[in-house]
Amino acid sequence: MTNPLIRQPALFQDRVEAIHDTALRVLEELGVRVLNTEARKVLADAGADVSEDTMMVRFDRELVSRALHTAPQMFEVHGGSDGCSIKVGGNNLVFGPVGGPAFVSDLDRGKRTGTLEELRILIKLAQSFDVIHLLSQSVEPQDVDLNVRHLQTTLSQLTLSDKVPFVYSRGSGQVHDCFEMIRIARDLSHEEFRARAWCHTVINTNSPRQLDVPMCQGIMDFARAGQMVIVTPFTLSGAMAPVTIPGALTLQHAEALAGITLDQVVRPGAPVVYGSFTSNVDMRSGSPAFGTPEFVKGAFGAGELARHIGLPWRGSAATASNAPDEQAVYETLMSAWGGVLGGINIMKHAAGWLEGGLTASKEKFILDVEMLQILAEVLHPLDASDAELGFDAIAATEPGGHFFAAQHTMERYRSAFYSPLLSDWRNFGEWSNDGAKTAVKRANEIWKSTLAVFEAPALCPGTEEALFEFVERRSTEGGSLPLDE
Amino acid sequence: MTNPLIRQPALFQDRVEAIHDTALRVLEELGVRVLNTEARKVLADAGADVSEDTMMVRFDRELVSRALHTAPQMFEVHGGSDGCSIKVGGNNLVFGPVGGPAFVSDLDRGKRTGTLEELRILIKLAQSFDVIHLLSQSVEPQDVDLNVRHLQTTLSQLTLSDKVPFVYSRGSGQVHDCFEMIRIARDLSHEEFRARAWCHTVINTNSPRQLDVPMCQGIMDFARAGQMVIVTPFTLSGAMAPVTIPGALTLQHAEALAGITLDQVVRPGAPVVYGSFTSNVDMRSGSPAFGTPEFVKGAFGAGELARHIGLPWRGSAATASNAPDEQAVYETLMSAWGGVLGGINIMKHAAGWLEGGLTASKEKFILDVEMLQILAEVLHPLDASDAELGFDAIAATEPGGHFFAAQHTMERYRSAFYSPLLSDWRNFGEWSNDGAKTAVKRANEIWKSTLAVFEAPALCPGTEEALFEFVERRSTEGGSLPLDE
Repeated sequence: MTNPLIRQPALFQDRVEAIHDTALRVLEELGVRVLNTEARKVLADAGADVSEDTMMVRFDRELVSRALHTAPQMFEVHGGSDGCSIKVGGNNLVFGPVGGPAFVSDLDRGKRTGTLEELRILIKLAQSFDVIHLLSQSVEPQDVDLNVRHLQTTLSQLTLSDKVPFVYSRGSGQVHDCFEMIRIARDLSHEEFRARAWCHTVINTNSPRQLDVPMCQGIMDFARAGQMVIVTPFTLSGAMAPVTIPGALTLQHAEALAGITLDQVVRPGAPVVYGSFTSNVDMRSGSPAFGTPEFVKGAFGAGELARHIGLPWRGSAATASNAPDEQAVYETLMSAWGGVLGGINIMKHAAGWLEGGLTASKEKFILDVEMLQILAEVLHPLDASDAELGFDAIAATEPGGHFFAAQHTMERYRSAFYSPLLSDWRNFGEWSNDGAKTAVKRANEIWKSTLAVFEAPALCPGTEEALFEFVERRSTEGGSLPLDE
Repeated sequence: MTNPLIRQPALFQDRVEAIHDTALRVLEELGVRVLNTEARKVLADAGADVSEDTMMVRFDRELVSRALHTAPQMFEVHGGSDGCSIKVGGNNLVFGPVGGPAFVSDLDRGKRTGTLEELRILIKLAQSFDVIHLLSQSVEPQDVDLNVRHLQTTLSQLTLSDKVPFVYSRGSGQVHDCFEMIRIARDLSHEEFRARAWCHTVINTNSPRQLDVPMCQGIMDFARAGQMVIVTPFTLSGAMAPVTIPGALTLQHAEALAGITLDQVVRPGAPVVYGSFTSNVDMRSGSPAFGTPEFVKGAFGAGELARHIGLPWRGSAATASNAPDEQAVYETLMSAWGGVLGGINIMKHAAGWLEGGLTASKEKFILDVEMLQILAEVLHPLDASDAELGFDAIAATEPGGHFFAAQHTMERYRSAFYSPLLSDWRNFGEWSNDGAKTAVKRANEIWKSTLAVFEAPALCPGTEEALFEFVERRSTEGGSLPLDE
């Protein structure tokens, strides 16, 4: 999908260069604390000023500049079938579902702890809608032991979907297991796997100015394997970042540049994405807020900063609402428009995210898919050739008449307009007689009917068996525990 | 309020001139049926080609061009106090509430026929929020006789609000009564009233290509009095307009130009606005739809057509949903973003509209006010001076620390972020313990608490008495019946 809209510049004229420069000063003069020993060594070898005592790493602007020079502006990440590969960068735009929540909810059973079965349901929903282009770990399956959880989540992604999978950076052991499973699923040699990108991870900094052990390890593991890294600082304005949006963007920019630099030092040219998550908190309670005016303006600014350094940009569609209600919808849609107008390349959390990311909601998933489908259709340019302007149809229709039966209409009506998934356009009487269901109640029916007809995409013969075998063997061997922070 | 965003061009490159030209061909070669005898005469005198047999009026492009030359690009409409005047055109943006519905609804009593008491409640809500800049007849008070309804609706607007009032074009008798009441309320001489704009009306064409008797009369009455006319063709693509959005825009443009030309022929320089309402219908049922991708693209196109002719542009924020639910929110917000990005100057129906305009919902009103306030805040540029970037605050905050107590934060936190009207950012536990109220339920509480503290703005001494006296006298005289179509 490509985005033809004009990009909205940040709403602070001519200060993008100043933010970039201040972020470089943060990296040069203040530095970032890097908790991973190997990462500090790699950066020191590349010329960074490293203190082993304080674990502080100072990046001079030459080093950052070299990294930005080698980082690709655009690249492809390959799925399990041709139609599932995604282009990242330029005018390209992809949507991904909610990632990371501990809880899952639906109208039938309310909010509860995530399980593997619930994760599988969310993967099936992501697979079912074309407007979702890549996967996330859409809920944390807490009924699966930590040492084998990565095996089960990756197995579910690879057997239920052919879209680009997500891999958590929770230590090299887990990451290499997941890489191996993807290699098996896609039927690749080790070299073929490393030659192109087949999966992605998200690296969150511990804002302010800190990169922890597994995050650094993830950057290095993914870079070495040539897989996509999204570096996303967690810069909540007023909490982990300055209380002004330009200040939060400055810190975000510095931290993203630190992660991107580590990635490019490890393997120049590895696919890496500039991520942003800047929003604000409620200054009375400290609670994070999303879809606020500050979030939208932060998105415009992040998009411009990403263009300034020539990298693809990842943002989010998010909400703080506790229910899949009207607030959830307007906050999510405000965020989404901020992203689309800012020129977003990867919109994460764009379906199913609720409660500041703590919960994956199935009804919210459907509400969001409808909104994403509408947005995607907005981005589809119109044919305005003479025939479409319809002068002859206008001439043939009497004043005060109608166009229902016009030839111009008959030739086009089947595909003229977007056909909604969820919206109900019937009149009040028909809608009332059918139970007066609000959109969230219809969404509840839609996720169920979607699951009822779900069919997993076909894998090559023998692949599923090979995956199961790998998971069984690695489980017997004890799997791999996540790396401590 | 001004809108600093970059305008999204119509998504059909280089075809704006072609649409303008085709619309001129529609006016020149096909014409518009004008049902009002006086309007035909006025147009014939101005050089239009008029057939009294068919009532068809053909406008040559010279005539249209003269009208566009005299129509002002920007003007002011005055309210009852300085802060209530609105600027129309250029980068200015104003929001108005729902207009025209027959029904009203709230969660307590459901959907029912509009009454004067309900209209008064909606006027109070419009008056209570600064983000609403002008009034509409937000519900039709069907408990008031037709001959005096205009007197009572205008009395309610003028005594409960100092924002710019709305007057229906239902015949000269009613219109002149309303003008007189506004003149009394604003304490103006007849000349002062006519010298500046103090109210507005909306003229809907009977698409395709027809202007009815009261609509023509309204254009002429308002133009003569120097009051604001918004010419809004009712071009639903696939029903009263071609099934393509560029085709619907072509018809919209032709009809709007016809109304604007009549306005400017009557009084060159009178304040007139290019209105659009182009959306699509559900081709299975014929039901109108709003907030669709087609609606958004129609808005981009309408905005560009308005800029092409140099006139202010009026659009809408609309939904077809039957309830103030998630669908109502995403359709309304899609429409609103379409307008804001298209460079809208007057956004009508932006608060409280439901069910394709058949119902005014009080909860929807509050939901919409929250969305409008967020949008308004998005349009507020950011300060990105060095102090705001916060290098010193970043330097003073330890890696992994927080900014809650930073001096930079303490100096700014009170006014740093938008404070919501409706959004609930508490955590799930607090929200659940407080009744787990979804946004629409909180909206129900907010409209009630808003009404509980409502105070009408003060009128000059004696003004209220003079208004009541006028209404009583005109009622005794029999008022004025609406003009037949």
